[in-house]
Parts: sequence; structure tokens; C-alpha cells
Amino acid sequence: MQLVQEQKCFGGRQIRYQHDSNTLNCSMQFSVFLPPQAEQGAVPAVYWLSGLTCTDENFSAKAGAQRAAAELGLALIIPDTSPRGEGVADDVDGAYDLGLGAGFYVNATQAPWNRHYHMYDYVLSELPALVESELPLNGKRAISGHSMGGHGALVLALRNPERFVSVSAFAPISNPTDCPWGHKALGAYLGEDKAAWADYDASLLLKAKGCSLPVLVDQGEADNFLAEQLKPQALKAAAEESGADLELRLQPGYDHSYYFIASFIAEHLRFHARHLGA
Amino acid sequence: MQLVQEQKCFGGRQIRYQHDSNTLNCSMQFSVFLPPQAEQGAVPAVYWLSGLTCTDENFSAKAGAQRAAAELGLALIIPDTSPRGEGVADDVDGAYDLGLGAGFYVNATQAPWNRHYHMYDYVLSELPALVESELPLNGKRAISGHSMGGHGALVLALRNPERFVSVSAFAPISNPTDCPWGHKALGAYLGEDKAAWADYDASLLLKAKGCSLPVLVDQGEADNFLAEQLKPQALKAAAEESGADLELRLQPGYDHSYYFIASFIAEHLRFHARHLGA
Repeated sequence: MQLVQEQKCFGGRQIRYQHDSNTLNCSMQFSVFLPPQAEQGAVPAVYWLSGLTCTDENFSAKAGAQRAAAELGLALIIPDTSPRGEGVADDVDGAYDLGLGAGFYVNATQAPWNRHYHMYDYVLSELPALVESELPLNGKRAISGHSMGGHGALVLALRNPERFVSVSAFAPISNPTDCPWGHKALGAYLGEDKAAWADYDASLLLKAKGCSLPVLVDQGEADNFLAEQLKPQALKAAAEESGADLELRLQPGYDHSYYFIASFIAEHLRFHARHLGA
Repeated sequence: MQLVQEQKCFGGRQIRYQHDSNTLNCSMQFSVFLPPQAEQGAVPAVYWLSGLTCTDENFSAKAGAQRAAAELGLALIIPDTSPRGEGVADDVDGAYDLGLGAGFYVNATQAPWNRHYHMYDYVLSELPALVESELPLNGKRAISGHSMGGHGALVLALRNPERFVSVSAFAPISNPTDCPWGHKALGAYLGEDKAAWADYDASLLLKAKGCSLPVLVDQGEADNFLAEQLKPQALKAAAEESGADLELRLQPGYDHSYYFIASFIAEHLRFHARHLGA
């Protein structure tokens, strides 16, 4: 991986890298925050998955997460949200909710998406292997994300609990098999046979398999997408049915924006730090 | 003034307003953060002046200032950096350092700039009168800013110490009569008679008049603009000559970006809170 940019931030290092991804079959950029403690030894990492339209830069610039990460000694690993570059398929109408910026953290099986859109494998395997071989990380991982990235964080953790110590989400797409964003994306990437969709639906996974990890979810009650797209009630019902350790916090007055994330990211990082032993 | 957008943030309110500015002769937008304490009564305000190319949204989204402001009970008043709209003059080549996004917080005397470019009067008088009549503010003011906005904050405070209790800056253009950005902007807005420039040069003002206010300046040592454009040494020399209470902190490794501002904004707000009685 090649260094693109490095900036000092809260005594640590905010870094952008570029690398050739075998999983995604294209060149990718991602961001990393290394806390000051990484100068002395390996630190645990929180993976952050951003939402629709984002790159690795939105969370880096807007969430203010580096302050708490520097205090807690946590690295932040911040991938892009889709494959990028010449020849990477996009929504034919340029819509924001499919294609570039909207990888949905799945492994696409349908053309033309299956050539590049393997964000699930990228975030689960290729990216951790890369950064853990190149950076001072101790291999302990937590995962979090926002909206489409909250969906991704929950699905990755529920399907791979041995890979993470804890999972959290802000306003996740909790039940994508039952909302318009999910129907469009899962239909395109996985095809119309809905049996394949269940592997990427956090509520269905939690109901079927339970979860051994602690799960924290914040949801703003003034979020425009809450009723139609996000459906955290489905996740809560699934947790109750499976006995999973889910804390769902409804936050009065908060919307879907980075102001909401910024307001609570320190609490999420403290939650993960407890489980990461940081 | 009309509400454009309001979002809950750290228990307070991040708000964007629009109004017709008599001073600037155009419609303007500005942002305000009201801390939770403003629900109970009037609070003091820190005015924030952004740098070249910014609007009111850059600081609002990227600095993470609302966290400390919410803790300290401070309002943040965040104007745009220039007049805007149809018919507002811009640099003929579209350069970033003159015209739109580059008002330099002066009262322009030269055509075509003198029709709209009166950011000095706007920030000093019109905007405080407006927000203090409409919002729960107690009339106590501090001022801060970044780069071009650090220049503006210093000049406004040095020329009007009765209006503010304290002033701070991040990487200010400290001596604009002696740097390329200043030569270009002051030459265009004020004309080539350099006698008029001295009223907008913080180092010359501080040397000539001293300053009764406490002044805090942070400057990153890895800032690309440090040597050619910013020249904090001139400000420091002027403070020593006039006996002003300037604390200039050189921060190793930090650059000119919002990651630098985010890293230290809480310290600046605590500095202002002490003087605001917050």
C-alpha cells in the first residue's frame, strides 16, 4: 500500500493509503487513524463503514472520532464504500443508492456488479490482512458503521463473530430485505431470488443465529429515513427472540447526519474499547 | 432572518439561517450552534471566522467544536467568508484567494469590490446586532478564526477591544502587508496606497496600539503556508514590543487543515470561556 497523505491529528496520525485490491479488482483508497499509543506498540482497531454516497473521507473529516480514539488508544480503519475507477459499473441513472458509493458491503453475484462489487470480502478479509501486516495493530477488532455502513457492520459481525469483539451502528439499515434501499441493492447485486438476500439482513441473521457479541445501536428519532428504510424495531425484535445482547438507544431530536454521529461516536468508541481491552 | 436548517448536535442546536444583509447588499447564510444551556437562558458567544474558500459550513461540519461548546455553554456564531450571489464580483480568473470565499474581513473601497465586500462591518456590527436580537445571547463575545479568518479575528479584536473579551487564532495571516495573499487582497480591496492596509494588519496594529485582551495563537509547524504567508513571528515581535498578552504556541507536526483545528479547538473554547465567564 502507498501513502497518499498524512496529517497530524490529536497527537496521532490521520493517514490515507492507496492499494491495488485483488478482491475488488481495482485500486482503492482508505483512511486510517493511528492514535499516539501506536508509537509505542500495537493497538486494537475499530473498523468504520460509512453510508451511501460516502468515501473514506466523510467519517474522517466530520465525525470527530479521532479525539476519543486518541484518548482510548484505538486505531480507526475507514474503507471506502464501493469499488472505484474506470470500468467499475454504476447505476445506469447515476442514482446515489446503487453502484459507486453504494456497495452495500455484499459480494455481488450478478453481472455487471460481480466483476468488482465484493465489499463483504474486502472488509472482512483483504483489508484487515493488509493493515495488520503493515501497521502497528494487535489484531483485535471491533466494527461500527452508519446507515448502509451500519447494515454492513452488523452483517459482518453477525456472520463472523470470531473476527470481532463488539459491534455498533448508527441508524443502520436494519432489515434490508424489507425496505426500498435494500430491495434495490440486494436485487441488483444478488438477483431476484430472495433466498440469497437473507445472508445480508441483520434482523434475519440475528433472529436465526443470535449473537455472542455485545451490540450497541443508536437511532435518531428525527431521522427522515427511520420509518421507511431503517426499521430498528425489526432488529430489536430479533434480539429479543434470540436473546442477543442488543442495546438500542432512540435519541430524541437527532437526524441522519454526521452531527448525530459526532454527538455519540465517543460513547461508541468507549463501548468498543471496553471489549477490546484498550 | 429565516431558518434554513436545524439539526440536533451534542444536545444543542446546529442551525443555519439566511438573511438580507444591508451591509453586504446581498442575501447571506450563516450558521449558529446553540448549546443546551441556551434553553435555560442567554449564553455568551464565540464568533468564528473561517479561512479562504470556506463557507459557514466548513467549520460547522469539520472542527468538532460543538462538543466543547456544549460542555462550556458557549454559542458559536459562524458567518460566511464573503458576500455571495448573482452580481457579486469575483476574481476575474476565479482564483481562490480573492473574491468569493475570500472577503478578508475588510471594508473594500475600490470598484468593483466596494459594492458588496464589507465583511469587516458585517462581522463587527450587523451580524452581532442581528443574532443578539433574535437568539438567547447575553452580549458577551469572544472571537477566533483560521488563516484568513485568524487575520480577521485579530484585526477585529485589536481595533475594537471593547467588543470582545478575548481573541484567538489558528494559523492566522499575521502580517498581511508583508505576504502574497495580503498584497493581492488588500491591493484589490483597498487600492495600491499602502497606508490604508495598515488598519488590516494584525502585527502593525498590535505594535502600534498594543492590546488589552488576552490573545491565544496556535500555529502548526508543518503548515505549508507558514513561512511565506502566515508569519506569526511578526505578531510575536509586535506583542513583545507593545507588552501585549499573546501566547503563541508552535505545534510540531500539525498542518493547515481542519485536523489541526479539531485537535485544539476545545482548548481555544476553554480559553474563551474563562474570559466570557461561562
